Amino acid sequence: MPIDVAKVEGIELPALDFEYTEKDVILYALGCGVGPEPEDLKFVYENGLQVLPTFGVIPPFPALVSLLGVEGFEVNPLMLLHGEQFIEVRKHPLETRGRLTTKPRVAHIYDKVKGALVEIETESLDEEGDIVYFNVFGAFFRGEGGFGGEKGPPAANEPPERPPDAVFESPTLPQQALIYRLSADINPLHADPRVAALAGYERPILHGLCTAGFAVRAMLKGYAGNDPLAFRSLKVRFTGHVFPGETIVTETWDEGGGSILFRVTTLERGLPAIGNACLELYS
Amino acid sequence: MPIDVAKVEGIELPALDFEYTEKDVILYALGCGVGPEPEDLKFVYENGLQVLPTFGVIPPFPALVSLLGVEGFEVNPLMLLHGEQFIEVRKHPLETRGRLTTKPRVAHIYDKVKGALVEIETESLDEEGDIVYFNVFGAFFRGEGGFGGEKGPPAANEPPERPPDAVFESPTLPQQALIYRLSADINPLHADPRVAALAGYERPILHGLCTAGFAVRAMLKGYAGNDPLAFRSLKVRFTGHVFPGETIVTETWDEGGGSILFRVTTLERGLPAIGNACLELYS
Repeated sequence: MPIDVAKVEGIELPALDFEYTEKDVILYALGCGVGPEPEDLKFVYENGLQVLPTFGVIPPFPALVSLLGVEGFEVNPLMLLHGEQFIEVRKHPLETRGRLTTKPRVAHIYDKVKGALVEIETESLDEEGDIVYFNVFGAFFRGEGGFGGEKGPPAANEPPERPPDAVFESPTLPQQALIYRLSADINPLHADPRVAALAGYERPILHGLCTAGFAVRAMLKGYAGNDPLAFRSLKVRFTGHVFPGETIVTETWDEGGGSILFRVTTLERGLPAIGNACLELYS
Repeated sequence: MPIDVAKVEGIELPALDFEYTEKDVILYALGCGVGPEPEDLKFVYENGLQVLPTFGVIPPFPALVSLLGVEGFEVNPLMLLHGEQFIEVRKHPLETRGRLTTKPRVAHIYDKVKGALVEIETESLDEEGDIVYFNVFGAFFRGEGGFGGEKGPPAANEPPERPPDAVFESPTLPQQALIYRLSADINPLHADPRVAALAGYERPILHGLCTAGFAVRAMLKGYAGNDPLAFRSLKVRFTGHVFPGETIVTETWDEGGGSILFRVTTLERGLPAIGNACLELYS
């Protein structure tokens, strides 16, 4: 089997250095669709700048690439899907410039039969040694399942039967993926029509984490007065794709205590993009 | 008089170092409105990347700020308007990453009665010592004229009486200035509604050089098969403002021999933004 589970599970991946300034914070916000609305100026203007909490997926992102170079991990990178993401902010307020060191490890490799789900846990620490962001990247490798391993916990965060408590619509730009990819993920799938076609898409698709960024922005506005300090954590499962230029629809259920269950579809095609998802807010 | 012409005219400003990568080239193109159209992918995607020729205004841009710190130049920076720009590309093809050194000097100070026009000439050299970009920044200082100096050459590039030979419409994004400003010019006038109001605008305005970038893109498509190698030089006079989100209208007159005279207005307000303008193409 191309993944040597006994060898890979539990190993530490190389530490990642990430130095950033206000410009990176603003570029990320523009990638997540922040525009000139007065209430959003604080995310794109250096005077009074605040950091969108989902920026925290950026510093550890290269861990996904490091994984592909690990001994005992012989897989086709084209079979990789970004399946799930968890991010928790552990230290507010978020600094608008600084240096973070991320320590990633392969925490779990689950046997999902149709594929293997590799969970990379990352802690991103500031120069005081405090953990600012804790992430779990769920990398799904198609065709690598069926090795008799643990199945892992079942999917959680199913929305209730009742209609959503609030629905948010967020238009994206035709060039949204081109902007977003400058922040971290330069996978050509999000820019190059030929690569997108090889992967089975009619054109380049938006990054899942960009879609998640849009959804979080909408919910911070709808449930937390657009205050990034309210963000505790986010869990998403990527269930489909969004094309740049489409409108992201976020259906939400307020479960009390700061828990917002949600799912994301596209307005144009009505197909799912994110499911089994929960935003936890400080309440 | 707050500008000591005898002292300032002819002086050299501090040399400027500029190191850039593909990311900067792409960010600039996104600032100038490049989207996902297949024929424009080459300006925003690192495989086969080409540099928009107007990128060459970026490396020398800080010279405008240096000017304000010069001894004998005691003016209110709020009275500064970016009046004119000339840029010539002297070395094709443009590299997608590298290091440039810019040598700026105050070439002329003209007495325009209502103000002083300070022309800063800049040469941007690559590591081989070749001049890649030659720019002239025309900085107009309101209220600093009438000192009995030379008037300078009269305005050129007036379009002929006949209707334009071709007209191009280029929509801008509401967040266009927020994207463009990450490349060079973080003047709050282009982001902060309060600063814009102080300057007499109902909201933040687009950078003049961003408007020029849009016009050049449209003309390269219309007259040169979208080939950046065709760019020889550009001269513009900024005659008004564009609000982000408005559509830029570029009226053009083909004068033969690669000379395209043009002017720019906004579709929504019909007011001028650029006049006395000429794009020179290799023909």
